[in-house]
Amino acid sequence: MQGKLIVFEGGEGGGKSTQLMRLKDWLLASSFWAQRQGGEPPVVTTREPGGTALGARLRALLLNTQDSAEVAIANRSELLLYAADRAQHVAEFITPHLEQGDLVLCDRYTASTVAYQGYGRGLDLGLIKQLNQIATAGVTCDLTLWLDLDVSIGLERVRQRGETFDRMETGEVAFHQRIRDGFTAIAAQQPTMVQIDAARDPDTVAAHIQAVIQEYLQQWYPPLSQN
Amino acid sequence: MQGKLIVFEGGEGGGKSTQLMRLKDWLLASSFWAQRQGGEPPVVTTREPGGTALGARLRALLLNTQDSAEVAIANRSELLLYAADRAQHVAEFITPHLEQGDLVLCDRYTASTVAYQGYGRGLDLGLIKQLNQIATAGVTCDLTLWLDLDVSIGLERVRQRGETFDRMETGEVAFHQRIRDGFTAIAAQQPTMVQIDAARDPDTVAAHIQAVIQEYLQQWYPPLSQN
Repeated sequence: MQGKLIVFEGGEGGGKSTQLMRLKDWLLASSFWAQRQGGEPPVVTTREPGGTALGARLRALLLNTQDSAEVAIANRSELLLYAADRAQHVAEFITPHLEQGDLVLCDRYTASTVAYQGYGRGLDLGLIKQLNQIATAGVTCDLTLWLDLDVSIGLERVRQRGETFDRMETGEVAFHQRIRDGFTAIAAQQPTMVQIDAARDPDTVAAHIQAVIQEYLQQWYPPLSQN
Repeated sequence: MQGKLIVFEGGEGGGKSTQLMRLKDWLLASSFWAQRQGGEPPVVTTREPGGTALGARLRALLLNTQDSAEVAIANRSELLLYAADRAQHVAEFITPHLEQGDLVLCDRYTASTVAYQGYGRGLDLGLIKQLNQIATAGVTCDLTLWLDLDVSIGLERVRQRGETFDRMETGEVAFHQRIRDGFTAIAAQQPTMVQIDAARDPDTVAAHIQAVIQEYLQQWYPPLSQN
């Protein structure tokens, strides 16, 4: 069986990390694989930035956590650092896992760069497309789950988490609105990007995601013999 | 007066850092500026990678010094990290200094990426050109001093320094020979790249560099009134 890249995307407060772990648990408990190859589904989880050892260093720089609080990052450098993180992630983690037939669940991928750096920061979309191409070496996602919700609700959720805001979360509301507009534009062009209303309660969101995945699994891995 | 970007390039052991500091001292002692604007020449020195706070973090990752010794870096990520370092350096340091009329002496710039990552590591030259363009936003060097010497002499000098080799210095001789071939190819296309025989003693090399700079200064800053 062939590996698939399933990406969770969206603005702040949409519950990407939570839903990603819930999907993993659901896949592990699912009978889908047991019926086909008699084993556990080969599911791995990862994220961007930060899916590799190099990425963890870059994530600390990019999200401006504690020890790098004073480091200035220009928009273009930020874009190139995300690309460096992605290139390492694709080479070291994603590609090998896809080659061995795994379902790779990834928290953010190329669409986040288009939405945050392109629509959010206003960097040239052609430049971002170029860099995404360079960084991914052509590895695209098979399904993107876009956890979408009203910007003010999302930011309020982040606030209620009580954590310190990172570099991205601190942007003003208009910044986050532009990002949401970005995801809207991307979804319009990408048939494998499914919009999920993330304002609903987590159980409902999880059930929606499971229904979508079930459908894609049938499509990706049709029964071996059909009459 | 308009700022100028003067870059020192070359393989390992050519004495770039030493000659850069010697040129700075010579410029500060030169009567050239005193005669023109009655002050010290506005000279600043910098280097890549590592010319900014962000760059210092990236330099540690890229050259694989102590605390990041275990971090794997794929060729494409390496290239993108150098580009991120450069983008930050151009935005935060080089451009502002050029705008205020400084002579910026820089240890390595775009040619190093072409020579090391392109010719040395074998990455696509078109891709590197693209990334150099993105990272520099079009800021090119006004003069490149290529400190060139036989690869085996250069590596022997590095060995004699007695320092631990960094990521670049540890490559085999063939890698360094390809890098030298790269600089040769670049110089053939770049009229403002001057080849300096760096196998000679440091005083002779410094004198050669001073003669070259003297000529360029006359050309860049012609006397205000000519009869």
